[in-house]
Amino acid sequence: MRLSQFHLRTEKETPADAEIVSHKLMLKAGMIRKLAAGLYTWSPLGLRVLRKVEAVVREEMNRAGAIEMAMPSVQPRELWEETGRWAKFGPQLLKIRDRKEQEYCFTPTAEEAVTDFFRQEVASYKQLPVNFYQITSKFRDEIRPRFGVMRAREFIMKDAYSFHADDESLHAQYRTMYDTYTRIFTRLGLKFRAVAADTGAIGGSASHEFHVLADSGEDALAFSETSDYAANVELAEAVSPGARPAASEALRDIETPAQKTCEDVAALMGISLARTVKSVAIMAGDGDGNLPEKGGQFVLALVRGDHSVNEIKLAKLPGLADYRLATEAEILEYLGSEPGFLGPLHAQKPIRVIADRSVAALADFVVGANKPGFHIAGVNWGRDLPEPETADIRNVVEGDPSPDGNGSLRMARGIEVGHVFALGRKYSEAMKCTVLDGNGKAVHPAMGCYGIGVSRIVAAAIEQNHDDAGIRWPQAMAPWQVAVCVINPKSDPAVAEAAETLHAELNAAGIDTALDDRGLRPGAMFADIELIGIPHRVVVSGRGLEAGTFEYRARSSAEAENLDRAALLARIANG
Amino acid sequence: MRLSQFHLRTEKETPADAEIVSHKLMLKAGMIRKLAAGLYTWSPLGLRVLRKVEAVVREEMNRAGAIEMAMPSVQPRELWEETGRWAKFGPQLLKIRDRKEQEYCFTPTAEEAVTDFFRQEVASYKQLPVNFYQITSKFRDEIRPRFGVMRAREFIMKDAYSFHADDESLHAQYRTMYDTYTRIFTRLGLKFRAVAADTGAIGGSASHEFHVLADSGEDALAFSETSDYAANVELAEAVSPGARPAASEALRDIETPAQKTCEDVAALMGISLARTVKSVAIMAGDGDGNLPEKGGQFVLALVRGDHSVNEIKLAKLPGLADYRLATEAEILEYLGSEPGFLGPLHAQKPIRVIADRSVAALADFVVGANKPGFHIAGVNWGRDLPEPETADIRNVVEGDPSPDGNGSLRMARGIEVGHVFALGRKYSEAMKCTVLDGNGKAVHPAMGCYGIGVSRIVAAAIEQNHDDAGIRWPQAMAPWQVAVCVINPKSDPAVAEAAETLHAELNAAGIDTALDDRGLRPGAMFADIELIGIPHRVVVSGRGLEAGTFEYRARSSAEAENLDRAALLARIANG
Repeated sequence: MRLSQFHLRTEKETPADAEIVSHKLMLKAGMIRKLAAGLYTWSPLGLRVLRKVEAVVREEMNRAGAIEMAMPSVQPRELWEETGRWAKFGPQLLKIRDRKEQEYCFTPTAEEAVTDFFRQEVASYKQLPVNFYQITSKFRDEIRPRFGVMRAREFIMKDAYSFHADDESLHAQYRTMYDTYTRIFTRLGLKFRAVAADTGAIGGSASHEFHVLADSGEDALAFSETSDYAANVELAEAVSPGARPAASEALRDIETPAQKTCEDVAALMGISLARTVKSVAIMAGDGDGNLPEKGGQFVLALVRGDHSVNEIKLAKLPGLADYRLATEAEILEYLGSEPGFLGPLHAQKPIRVIADRSVAALADFVVGANKPGFHIAGVNWGRDLPEPETADIRNVVEGDPSPDGNGSLRMARGIEVGHVFALGRKYSEAMKCTVLDGNGKAVHPAMGCYGIGVSRIVAAAIEQNHDDAGIRWPQAMAPWQVAVCVINPKSDPAVAEAAETLHAELNAAGIDTALDDRGLRPGAMFADIELIGIPHRVVVSGRGLEAGTFEYRARSSAEAENLDRAALLARIANG
Repeated sequence: MRLSQFHLRTEKETPADAEIVSHKLMLKAGMIRKLAAGLYTWSPLGLRVLRKVEAVVREEMNRAGAIEMAMPSVQPRELWEETGRWAKFGPQLLKIRDRKEQEYCFTPTAEEAVTDFFRQEVASYKQLPVNFYQITSKFRDEIRPRFGVMRAREFIMKDAYSFHADDESLHAQYRTMYDTYTRIFTRLGLKFRAVAADTGAIGGSASHEFHVLADSGEDALAFSETSDYAANVELAEAVSPGARPAASEALRDIETPAQKTCEDVAALMGISLARTVKSVAIMAGDGDGNLPEKGGQFVLALVRGDHSVNEIKLAKLPGLADYRLATEAEILEYLGSEPGFLGPLHAQKPIRVIADRSVAALADFVVGANKPGFHIAGVNWGRDLPEPETADIRNVVEGDPSPDGNGSLRMARGIEVGHVFALGRKYSEAMKCTVLDGNGKAVHPAMGCYGIGVSRIVAAAIEQNHDDAGIRWPQAMAPWQVAVCVINPKSDPAVAEAAETLHAELNAAGIDTALDDRGLRPGAMFADIELIGIPHRVVVSGRGLEAGTFEYRARSSAEAENLDRAALLARIANG
């Protein structure tokens, strides 16, 4: 590709309204343009990168035996009513009314549509297993779209859906998809981790997320330093600590006039933060999907001062599926205190106390006194309080033992770019989708679903691969592998011709190469090529021609070298 | 591709609700499945064909120097307000409200979005010309979606938009796109015609439609037998006939008690239909886009009894931009008669009379008498009526002289699959889009737009290429070039192996080949392969292996032949 015939428009200024580096660099490199909130046009440069990602995803899905098809973006409400997701999906579902006042949505995911396709197409277990996928635009009406294409409203997703006669087949396909995702992200040249994940609203029996590791990632991940264990912090188990020591202190009030946090109390008392206990006041829902708007059971969730409550774990406890934080009025009613001094002793009314395992293992700990300006020290289970209901309700922290018993946990931040789910029969049952089994009996097929955020990968790759000069694409995602830059193409026809020849040869050899024949000054040209992240830069100049060399510089290197043709080709071939 | 690993689901029954052959065959072959009115899922088989079309379109657009990018499907109302198209586009525009009550549409076309992209990206005439294109889903909320993907609501369109410093550059690009479209439809193996077209609501100075020729086509086309002339009947000029003969008959009333049509009157009188004149009563609009709901100028449009009024030509006459048919009450008020007996003589009030050129050239003709049960014969211009306002307001008919003076016109029916427009500055002016010209002055760029109905091409190709057994794909669009069919794969390992080998060899040679290893009986297998339209069928059998031959049959041939390997490969290579 001759860049003089391409539309490359980089910006000198760093965009003011972009918060994260990938958004800034995509705007600066001219890869995307905002059309409206969360809606982006992919420029020719941006689309080249997007298509490279798509191609790798498609090749690997095909290699795994998945079959590509395409469902409409606009899908009828009736279908979404069959699974109840029309209501459950919430305001992220973009709803549409047509000229006949029929209701539709812009598909965020296609479990319903693919199950409808399947139930019309497949009648017998003999046609199973099958895995359908598509790479199409999806829409989520994010309340706060941001970070460019990282959290856009319209985005490109690869979504795949498999159907199985039995669970064994589902789990085999789940493993195949897990391995396929591993190959995809490896081929894309990304540092990533697969982590066990919560199955959340989609449901099902098993689920793994694939995260590109980056400090700016929205998700916290925990992994063992010495084993394969890795999980989203949402899910990672905080294992039981050792046995509780014996009580050794007397119960006593501590004056804490201005100390409303565990940190302040621990500092005042000169004790470890790990001996203080945080009390989080919540109202339990009725477990039937009805939020406890008024009343409900008052619950105090206790975690150590150096820990934080894991809301997903909490919501999985009996009766807490729809919990919410208690209001100040409710806290006053049940505990007789204002927030900052809450604790499990001296409640005004009966309450449910749930202690994290690490809190249950404490002796001589400190809690709020339910009296403004006071905490209570020397608290002991069994002596000052009944033995509590105990559960794992905290987020793991760095240094916690790994749940698999191997080593301790470290933390990383990740950007979720893929997700595999073993769905089970949730959708096939809700949509009355059956096939005949070997005995001629109608059975609901087991299903899996497997998503990859194709457009998000582009941004995630930049978060992981950039420097002050711009993007540093992994080979497989680069818009071009090589940029051949010409100094003064118009003033020296021999230089222009040598560059043309090299450009043509590299492309003929299957190395995607751009010829920068725009006639820019070297400084501006090199800045562009660095900004847009081309892995290999070759400069063709009159001086080099005389010496029989090309100036080569890898994007990852600070130094340029003069190489003859053979050495140059070898260097490029080495990647 | 092994068909045992693919998802091929043909139907035995012809679908009852499909009206045209392409819709029937696409359902029977299992290429598409209806999700809702005008919304179709493309099965793996259908998508293969769609992608073949896309690939040809993409290759030829790239070869022509157009640059691919991608705009969002969901576009904000504000942008469409800039050109007034939010209102003008009418109910075909699918309007959407997001969670914040902001309005959007699902893009049916992207002139606004691309002009917005351009005005942010391009500042100088030096960056021109440029031609951006995308191949994406579009939506038109058809009031009566039908014929499967031929007139679906969601569909795949290639849309391209070019920007130019001057008209000369626009016209050069228009010609390039015209030639590119010619190459695309030629490569796809379709019989097509480019015809001059009306620029319609999109506006601009020049426009050609590309039609796939098929009897089921919705458009009527006129073309010269002996020259390049071709036009949509909407636009084709009916050239001036020879001079008017002298009057030879006296004016006289004819009793036509039950004769309300020209045909009936001509039959009653025993004269040629070409001597009768049809009077079409209309009310003229005010030309400002306001429909003449109440009142307006009463107009009688006159065409010969053997001709029909061309509504598009009529609307282009001064004052008739927004005309509508007159009501019976208005006809009674102005002419004093009921429909069936209308004519230009004896009106009750002043009326405007517009005669088609062929009517203005008549002598001694017959019109309605504006009196129930009567017509008037022997009518002559100048003598019985003032000389009329004359214009070309009729549709051409077979045998009319070609407007270019070469030969006479023939008619054909076509399915519009492409359209090129020289837009001019309509959008760049409305959207205040400028570039600096060579003198540093801000000027509005000239624009062109160029569409191809990618998904419609699939259906149009079937309308043109089918027989009783199913689809007969042109080579370039076929899901596979060759089907290798195995008889009794399980019972004869040598046969299975020979088929596998041939399948692998053909694919390695770049010939897209399917192996039908599903183990069906020969009849069912051959019926499927014919139905889905594979151009070359090769049968591998035990008998053939012994004889050293393969049974070959072209989809276009009724006869199978036994060929040795070399002859087989030569036959396939010849296409």
